[in-house]
Amino acid sequence: MKNKRKNIVTIGGGTGSFTLLSGLKEYNLNLSAVVSMADDGGSTGVLRDELGVLPPGDARQCLVALSESAEILRELMNYRFEKGSLAGHSFGNLFVSALEKINGNFSRGIFEAGKILKIKGEVIPVSEGNMRLFIRLNNGKILKGENELDHNGEIKKEGIKNVFLKPRVSICEKAARAIKKADLIVIGPGDLWGSILPNLLVDGVKEAIGKSKGKVVFIANLTNKKGQTSGFGACDYARIVNCHLGGGGIDYLVFNTQKPPRRLLEKYEKKEGGDVFVGLGEKQGNYKVVKARLLNLKVPRKIKGDTLAATRALIRHDSRKLAKAIMELTGQNPKL
Amino acid sequence: MKNKRKNIVTIGGGTGSFTLLSGLKEYNLNLSAVVSMADDGGSTGVLRDELGVLPPGDARQCLVALSESAEILRELMNYRFEKGSLAGHSFGNLFVSALEKINGNFSRGIFEAGKILKIKGEVIPVSEGNMRLFIRLNNGKILKGENELDHNGEIKKEGIKNVFLKPRVSICEKAARAIKKADLIVIGPGDLWGSILPNLLVDGVKEAIGKSKGKVVFIANLTNKKGQTSGFGACDYARIVNCHLGGGGIDYLVFNTQKPPRRLLEKYEKKEGGDVFVGLGEKQGNYKVVKARLLNLKVPRKIKGDTLAATRALIRHDSRKLAKAIMELTGQNPKL
Repeated sequence: MKNKRKNIVTIGGGTGSFTLLSGLKEYNLNLSAVVSMADDGGSTGVLRDELGVLPPGDARQCLVALSESAEILRELMNYRFEKGSLAGHSFGNLFVSALEKINGNFSRGIFEAGKILKIKGEVIPVSEGNMRLFIRLNNGKILKGENELDHNGEIKKEGIKNVFLKPRVSICEKAARAIKKADLIVIGPGDLWGSILPNLLVDGVKEAIGKSKGKVVFIANLTNKKGQTSGFGACDYARIVNCHLGGGGIDYLVFNTQKPPRRLLEKYEKKEGGDVFVGLGEKQGNYKVVKARLLNLKVPRKIKGDTLAATRALIRHDSRKLAKAIMELTGQNPKL
Repeated sequence: MKNKRKNIVTIGGGTGSFTLLSGLKEYNLNLSAVVSMADDGGSTGVLRDELGVLPPGDARQCLVALSESAEILRELMNYRFEKGSLAGHSFGNLFVSALEKINGNFSRGIFEAGKILKIKGEVIPVSEGNMRLFIRLNNGKILKGENELDHNGEIKKEGIKNVFLKPRVSICEKAARAIKKADLIVIGPGDLWGSILPNLLVDGVKEAIGKSKGKVVFIANLTNKKGQTSGFGACDYARIVNCHLGGGGIDYLVFNTQKPPRRLLEKYEKKEGGDVFVGLGEKQGNYKVVKARLLNLKVPRKIKGDTLAATRALIRHDSRKLAKAIMELTGQNPKL
């Protein structure tokens, strides 16, 4: 007998959601990818400033992950122009922004983008409100913009106290609906302050998760960032996520037990200080820890024109292993 | 009994080829659109200069004309960004240029673009050589760049003696093959100096046309431009085209007999001086004149984000009437 297809909602940002969705796409599921709308750096930042559009970058990555169109079209979406006034722009970002302009709003633009890219499932902005992420440091200073996270040296010295959105924005109706009828809500993987919390801080998100019958899964990060999450264990990430959730908080913490090679850790430690690799830490709260070996240790494929690829994280989740761990939580025999 | 599908090759530039191909697409034909590669103005010019790509604009218009994909995708290809550093860029030009970069050459990029856009037929650059159009005025002065045609005031005063390409470039192998096996070769409609001759001046084009078994049709222009074609009749256009063709020159001259409304002519006369509307003129040469009422007098549809649309020519060919006139020359019962 055929099982009813499960409704899975992912909540996250660009690269982490890309990995997770690339794996989940291979299963017979109803997938909804809720994406953060706080990005304001790089190509996305220029488009926000110059065209007044909402941030296309995270949504683009989810669209590509779920796309079942020809390889060349997916490659095109990740292509970055290298020279002149277009330098640094991702073609896919221009694609999403042009569709937003033509369709009059972001959600409709993403919907049309999804049709063109033949995506399996749907990509939904967590909110259609135009806001910025603000970062409060431990010394009381407030920084404006998600882009500061990776570029402001003061963060490494002072550490982050919390983040907030300004102005306050509300959850997109479509996101609320998807969360409410989900069988499983998967938060992460992604940058805690830059990708995860900018979703959970949107008005209505924790309420929607609280009202949902779905189990809540949090996929812990693999590595810590200096000043942002120095010395964190997976349970510390989970604790902060739980502070931003209504109801009983998360039901499962997915934790990687596979150690990265020494040479990779050393590379990270040079930049992020000690305690880079995330251990389990001290559990506080009523959730189950799911342990699995989740690392992808293959060298990332260089995409033509994507000059950022080489500098991207090399300690990362494996999309297949991650999807398999998630599928085991649905309680049904995963059917490829 | 089913007729064998005719091979029709069009030779031209952007807007004129767009009109012709939009009409021909509705018939059961093998269509090959050979496009000029001399454009260096606007969005196309910026991309040539900054990215070192070949000119995408004319090819893009032909791709859109032949596309059988959803309306939204065709609309996207014509979308122009309005603000910031992207202002004036056609999304479709970025699409073609990114595909050229990813695929390593223009022809392959256009081929992949055609697959994504589900085009009926094929779009072929007349050459893959990187050249510029040069304009020699009657006073001996030489201007560099196709873009000068519409922007250099001296042309209106002095008039054009001839144009040439530099460096010399050769016909694309695919274009030569399409021309050789054509049943009908349709030149125009298009700007004489800016779109038609930049095709015929490419090394190997007149030879390919000369060797082809196909009949050669030239679609005369509707209006004259001051300094460029002042006081020309259709036969004057045909004479210049014939000078650039080997073999017996054109076989048919398609000539519009429908007069535009007075108010439109007056609008043109303000800009282009008298004798704007192209009459037949004095026939020299061994071709047949095909007379037909070919005007499209509908107000052009405003495409969102296409700020140029409103300023575009309003005395223009009707794609259906034009295609019907061409189909009658194939000698077969046109089958929609």
